[in-house]
Amino acid sequence: MKYETPLFFHVMRYAVQADRDVIDMVSGNPDWEPPEALREGLHEYADLESDQFQYPPSDGLLELREEIAARRGVDREQVIVTNGAGEANYLAMARALERDLGSEVLLTDPVYPYYPGKTTMLGGTQRFVETAEDGQLEPAAVREAASEETACIVVNTPNNPTGAVYPEETMAELVAIAEECDAILVSDEVYDHYDLSGEFASALATESDHRIVTNAFSKSLAITGFRVGYAIFPPELVENAKSRHMLVNVAGSRPAQYAVAHALFETGPEYYEANRELLAERVDTFTDALDAAGAEYTRPDGAFYVMARFDGYPGTLENVERLIDEAGVAGMPGEAFGSSREAWLRFALVTPRVEEAAQRLAAYFE
Amino acid sequence: MKYETPLFFHVMRYAVQADRDVIDMVSGNPDWEPPEALREGLHEYADLESDQFQYPPSDGLLELREEIAARRGVDREQVIVTNGAGEANYLAMARALERDLGSEVLLTDPVYPYYPGKTTMLGGTQRFVETAEDGQLEPAAVREAASEETACIVVNTPNNPTGAVYPEETMAELVAIAEECDAILVSDEVYDHYDLSGEFASALATESDHRIVTNAFSKSLAITGFRVGYAIFPPELVENAKSRHMLVNVAGSRPAQYAVAHALFETGPEYYEANRELLAERVDTFTDALDAAGAEYTRPDGAFYVMARFDGYPGTLENVERLIDEAGVAGMPGEAFGSSREAWLRFALVTPRVEEAAQRLAAYFE
Repeated sequence: MKYETPLFFHVMRYAVQADRDVIDMVSGNPDWEPPEALREGLHEYADLESDQFQYPPSDGLLELREEIAARRGVDREQVIVTNGAGEANYLAMARALERDLGSEVLLTDPVYPYYPGKTTMLGGTQRFVETAEDGQLEPAAVREAASEETACIVVNTPNNPTGAVYPEETMAELVAIAEECDAILVSDEVYDHYDLSGEFASALATESDHRIVTNAFSKSLAITGFRVGYAIFPPELVENAKSRHMLVNVAGSRPAQYAVAHALFETGPEYYEANRELLAERVDTFTDALDAAGAEYTRPDGAFYVMARFDGYPGTLENVERLIDEAGVAGMPGEAFGSSREAWLRFALVTPRVEEAAQRLAAYFE
Repeated sequence: MKYETPLFFHVMRYAVQADRDVIDMVSGNPDWEPPEALREGLHEYADLESDQFQYPPSDGLLELREEIAARRGVDREQVIVTNGAGEANYLAMARALERDLGSEVLLTDPVYPYYPGKTTMLGGTQRFVETAEDGQLEPAAVREAASEETACIVVNTPNNPTGAVYPEETMAELVAIAEECDAILVSDEVYDHYDLSGEFASALATESDHRIVTNAFSKSLAITGFRVGYAIFPPELVENAKSRHMLVNVAGSRPAQYAVAHALFETGPEYYEANRELLAERVDTFTDALDAAGAEYTRPDGAFYVMARFDGYPGTLENVERLIDEAGVAGMPGEAFGSSREAWLRFALVTPRVEEAAQRLAAYFE
């Protein structure tokens, strides 16, 4: 079996080993602080009785699952706490494919590279639907590509890498298409707290037993290394997903789940608001500089990324490495996200040096 | 797709909900303290800069991988830090099966129930080799069952549920059989620190590119809920396993990995020795009481468990529930571990109330 390994780790290693100062715009690691209550939660956990260091319930610590269920307006039994959104998406896609109702996975192009990798690993077939230039997904294009061969449709909103936020009509239409084809819509909403447009709509808003919503605290609490995420399944699909979760991971890591639960209880909306504002400022700063450099780009409505295009400098891995060595800015090659963005580069805005990076790019491409 | 969900969680829930005091001899959760340095490690981690809260390397924190590699005498690149032994076994079995050299998984009977569950989930076929009455595995019986259809042979030493520890000759023979059939020996050695016989031999002692060793800190550091384990692959098998790990989990949980690394550096052999002695005492206490009750049992050479048989009381789930309600002792039904032990019950010695439990059993079966 061969399956693609996402390129992120390769590019990050190249940037770290470079013989110069490099501004890292590769990873999706927030550079802002987690809530103070997260650290408190870890300290608190470290002093608990040792029976609290043993297996948590396989589907997650009860108080965490209940809090997630309450916030998302679903039944607790529909929630599985996972090892980040990565495992949540794996469980969701595996659950869709194992129904034996088609083996095709509809993905967008550009796409977050883990999805095609998971598809191949799970024995599914990839089929891509190209998004519009601004990253929006046309339901009509999805409907045209969907068939009884479609096992699932995987979308990500707010979107990595395009920054698109799909409006409510799009989400409702995607759910309807999944129902028509007896497919499952898998909606990865890990950037939901970074919607800059006010247009974000969760797939949960459309009642259906044909959609699974995945998410994580990796981005919203700035803790990508803690690996705490979740998936919300329709009641009739959840049991098998719990079995798979148990057979693959037994359970998630308890110290991380405890700290996340504590942070959720103790952190008010102003924490999330402040990070959203910081991100919005960085979008302005970076796109202003791109304007000055005469680059083409998509202004993001959400998530952490800007895709940009520089004349005569296609988004290959080779060019990304050249940009690291010669300009001191590390981005991701557009080709990593699919054929439609081979000319583009993706820059993550999770560094305090956004302005400097933009200046370096402007100087380099001048 | 249907696959078995291990019964552990069901029985534990039944015991917790019982309307009386119940001694829990179900789970494999150590009831002794983790090393003090583990708590220190968590406190230390909680105060680190927030960039330390972001993605660790996918295959594990470097200092942890290096320490594991040094202790096990292998190259660092062969080590993948996993979400406990659960994920390690999943990766190992998946890697063996995806070579497309047979789809049969040889398992022992009795068996740790997650292995057949994983086999089915991964699309493999189960084939069981019955162990001797004392739990020892006869290489001749394995050789007879093995064929070109065999993708892997999964063993666990020290063994759950029998307590058997396979001697060096057995391990060497199992590796040889794997080589003969172009199969992979998966040796789960998670109880290696609880060998009471001095006979434990790791599969690593036999050089081969046909064996994968899995392990975890769950039992040795008394932290089943932290989910930090590892797998050691032959160099030619490790890359695809890393890809699968990345595509399923992205990475393991960083606070847990950090605390484990700190605990490994700071904890001396006396910690492990003391727990081994405690366990040996409990084996004596429990088997003495079983003797007094006239029960048949296997005296464990390692791990946490004793299998016992009471006349006219087969090891069904129904009887386990009756024992919880009527005797206040929760064990596991022998039938959960395969057809060869349907008459037996398994008791875990990870409770300070081992003596009381034995007395309750003696009184109940008198």
